[in-house]
Amino acid sequence: MTAVSGIRDWVRLGATDNVLIALRALEPGTVLTDGLSALEPIPAGHKVASQAIPKGACVFKYGQIIGTAFEDIPAGGHVHVHNLGMGDHSRDYAFASDARALVPVDAPRRFEGYHRPSGRVGTRNYIGILTSVNCSGSVARFIAEEVAGRAVLDAFPNVDGIVPIAHGSGCGMAGKGEGYETLFRTLAGYARNPNFGAILMLGLGCEVMQVPDLVGRAALKDEARFRYMTIQGEGGTAATIRRGLDIIRELASEADKAVRRPAPARHLVLGMQCGGSDGYSGITANPALGHASDLLVRNGGTSILSETSEIYGAEHLLTRRAVDEPTGRKLIDLIDWWEDYTARNFGEMDNNPSPGNKRGGLTTILEKSLGAVAKGGTAPLAGVYRYAEPIDQPGFVFMDSPGYDPCSVTGQVASGANLIAFTTGRGSVSGYMPVPGIKIASNSDLWRRMEPDMDINCGDILEGVEIEAKGREIFETILRVASGEKTKSEVQGFGAVEFVPWQIGAVM
Amino acid sequence: MTAVSGIRDWVRLGATDNVLIALRALEPGTVLTDGLSALEPIPAGHKVASQAIPKGACVFKYGQIIGTAFEDIPAGGHVHVHNLGMGDHSRDYAFASDARALVPVDAPRRFEGYHRPSGRVGTRNYIGILTSVNCSGSVARFIAEEVAGRAVLDAFPNVDGIVPIAHGSGCGMAGKGEGYETLFRTLAGYARNPNFGAILMLGLGCEVMQVPDLVGRAALKDEARFRYMTIQGEGGTAATIRRGLDIIRELASEADKAVRRPAPARHLVLGMQCGGSDGYSGITANPALGHASDLLVRNGGTSILSETSEIYGAEHLLTRRAVDEPTGRKLIDLIDWWEDYTARNFGEMDNNPSPGNKRGGLTTILEKSLGAVAKGGTAPLAGVYRYAEPIDQPGFVFMDSPGYDPCSVTGQVASGANLIAFTTGRGSVSGYMPVPGIKIASNSDLWRRMEPDMDINCGDILEGVEIEAKGREIFETILRVASGEKTKSEVQGFGAVEFVPWQIGAVM
Ligand SMILES: [Ca+2]
Ligand SMILES: [Ca+2]
Ligand SMILES: [Ca+2]
Ligand SMILES: [Ca+2]
Ligand SMILES: [Ca+2]
Repeated sequence: MTAVSGIRDWVRLGATDNVLIALRALEPGTVLTDGLSALEPIPAGHKVASQAIPKGACVFKYGQIIGTAFEDIPAGGHVHVHNLGMGDHSRDYAFASDARALVPVDAPRRFEGYHRPSGRVGTRNYIGILTSVNCSGSVARFIAEEVAGRAVLDAFPNVDGIVPIAHGSGCGMAGKGEGYETLFRTLAGYARNPNFGAILMLGLGCEVMQVPDLVGRAALKDEARFRYMTIQGEGGTAATIRRGLDIIRELASEADKAVRRPAPARHLVLGMQCGGSDGYSGITANPALGHASDLLVRNGGTSILSETSEIYGAEHLLTRRAVDEPTGRKLIDLIDWWEDYTARNFGEMDNNPSPGNKRGGLTTILEKSLGAVAKGGTAPLAGVYRYAEPIDQPGFVFMDSPGYDPCSVTGQVASGANLIAFTTGRGSVSGYMPVPGIKIASNSDLWRRMEPDMDINCGDILEGVEIEAKGREIFETILRVASGEKTKSEVQGFGAVEFVPWQIGAVM
Repeated sequence: MTAVSGIRDWVRLGATDNVLIALRALEPGTVLTDGLSALEPIPAGHKVASQAIPKGACVFKYGQIIGTAFEDIPAGGHVHVHNLGMGDHSRDYAFASDARALVPVDAPRRFEGYHRPSGRVGTRNYIGILTSVNCSGSVARFIAEEVAGRAVLDAFPNVDGIVPIAHGSGCGMAGKGEGYETLFRTLAGYARNPNFGAILMLGLGCEVMQVPDLVGRAALKDEARFRYMTIQGEGGTAATIRRGLDIIRELASEADKAVRRPAPARHLVLGMQCGGSDGYSGITANPALGHASDLLVRNGGTSILSETSEIYGAEHLLTRRAVDEPTGRKLIDLIDWWEDYTARNFGEMDNNPSPGNKRGGLTTILEKSLGAVAKGGTAPLAGVYRYAEPIDQPGFVFMDSPGYDPCSVTGQVASGANLIAFTTGRGSVSGYMPVPGIKIASNSDLWRRMEPDMDINCGDILEGVEIEAKGREIFETILRVASGEKTKSEVQGFGAVEFVPWQIGAVM
């Protein structure tokens, strides 16, 4: 960990924890609390027992079991690989044993959003040009440039802008199977996202991912706010741009009718992410976001945890939090799928602490994955979804995805997320139009170096700010951003290249 | 096939062919040549025997064996599934038996190009901002927009423009293995491409595809024309844009020193493609491009055939054209790799003629794949390369790639292509900065519908123009475009989203 000024000595990450995390190197004799001193040197980031832990007892961090003491550990002792190991919990997929519903708030908070005919509420009001295939991506951009060049949107003040959505796939792929279905769900989900006030879907014409199939299988949006065409059908680039301009004028006129009106927080669907994590992510930004997630759930909203490859090893803790066994089993099925997916691609699921992780104080695979899971707070796991599958229920849910940030966010937006909260330790500078992304720094060094890119600093947790207070700050920011306040990445114009559908299967 | 006006009755696709292709439905008794009449109804696109073919004899189309007659076929008879099948040739990987060197031209043609310190010659003089990962793609675009907004390049008239190269990968992937190596070669190859007069390589900082690794493994470009940095290293978006602007000014000043000077045609490296093919592609545009490829090879240049999934079934004809057995074996190794790649991704290599293909007149897998191979003319196969591998020898070569157009072109450009020739029947409207792409229409309907997108019409082959004449027209266009004449897709500004590296392996 890099140096942080004004740092305090330790942090406790869960109310029921029997270890504290040292925030600086502690000398033997350092007083930690009344009656508790470090018995031996504790390196920064490492664990110190806050009470005597008998041999065979569980060690708790984040309020979760991270392993079992294999010898008696005195209060003030160093807890690490020499006295802590994985117990029998690692392969025990208990279901729903640990699902404790959060208490709903008495008066749910509200935000100002765009109420859509689907019943969903947008936090932005963009017009999207969705492309079925890479081969229509340039023309989608040409239409958007023409709209900008002619200042078409000046006449429609309620429209936030026009977003061409280009990507690298859509052809050279099998016309059925999981790769096809995944892209199909992603494109359909973007069309449905309530942050798009209107959609023009644009294809080339001869691609595998046929626009008529996308349009035909399900209603993507109400008729007045949805159009589609192909470049080959229109007779080439110039004709398509001309027609596109006319269509955008019509769509903008429809989208412009939307105005922000009060909406209860249950209409918020928050995609949670971490990227460019560092040693602080798991003890500052992620737990703080977890607390914000709990607040959102208590307000009736939805928060989405994803990044399956990064929670690997902690899945049986999530199954315990599942509302019922079928929900927990869905998660285990995903893990099994991932083991096969990586194996047949000559990779492996391996989240075991590396030598560097261990030097930094992470002892077990559980502890490492819990640093990512900490974003998910303590709410019961209400649902498990495939990548880009429509999320149709409130509460804390899991959506399958790679850990790769743009790919994971793309799936969450397709699933219906209307806000993203993104923790980072090294500094990520991406954005995800049409959905605003709140960047949460895990340490104050990053905050100082990259403040124009960061919305919230969680580094001050190391200087004494309570995780719960920071969670409330994040939740308040979520409400303001949902109501229209721009994030740093929106101000800077990010989001034109970050649409990255999960490409599964052979490119043919 | 759609209706084409002014059509003639038939075309012969190879001088040694014993079949002609009917260009319209022929009635029995239709006189084809002196002494040759159709004996029975021949549907449009189908084959008619131009001489008696005894049972057991080979049937030739494109000057290549497409199968064996399994009964005696009289001159004027319909040749199709009822009398033509695959012989023993299908699994017989003979090597080099059919490699007949083309006669070099006496006086090689020249073009006007940018001579680079590497010894290679560019056909354009762009500045590229290459990105290691999706997460630096937006900032690369911001730098380019800042350069445009300040009209920085106005002071550098010899620079063609600035090209930000964004993509969807670079992280969430294994840090070794074929997926990593493929992306590495692609990025390194773009940096080296002679159509870039200068390169700024931009990373985020924490990604798997590390900029220091890309820069460290091999010299990508001479020092004066190459720079790199990361967003995290610079301290965020705004700082990176400021420094990027300074760097682009320096690079532009270097790149501006380049001027077009005469270069022999051996410096041309032509990537050949087909996309959005139709029933005419294999009898007009592809054979005409094949003739242009032969002319380029006779002038000492390089032409690249790719799209491995589309030549499947005809590989043993290419091994016969290989200059030696090791070259031919490399192609067979690629085919074996593809069979595994598709199988472990639950797909299959299957290029057998579909019912629709058969109705259109294609009888065997050989015949179908030869429609794509026809682009490769008749020159010996001088080399076989992996995707994005540097091509280091002249002549007709093969580079492995999917058939998916943007992905295949991306590999060819990374391998060193400084021109693309792209045949299409349905109409493709893509472009591939920094490399110009010549669009070649297979039929006159397409030409009329999408002339602003098409550079050459091969539909007039159906009206009597000789394939060889059309091949010469393509070759002359190649020389003019190489010397600076803009293609239709360049005039329209295509190329901002078509960088699609072949993504192999699990997204993690
Ligand atoms: Ca991530
Ligand atoms: Ca398993
Ligand atoms: Ca093709
Ligand atoms: Ca193709
Ligand atoms: Ca084989």
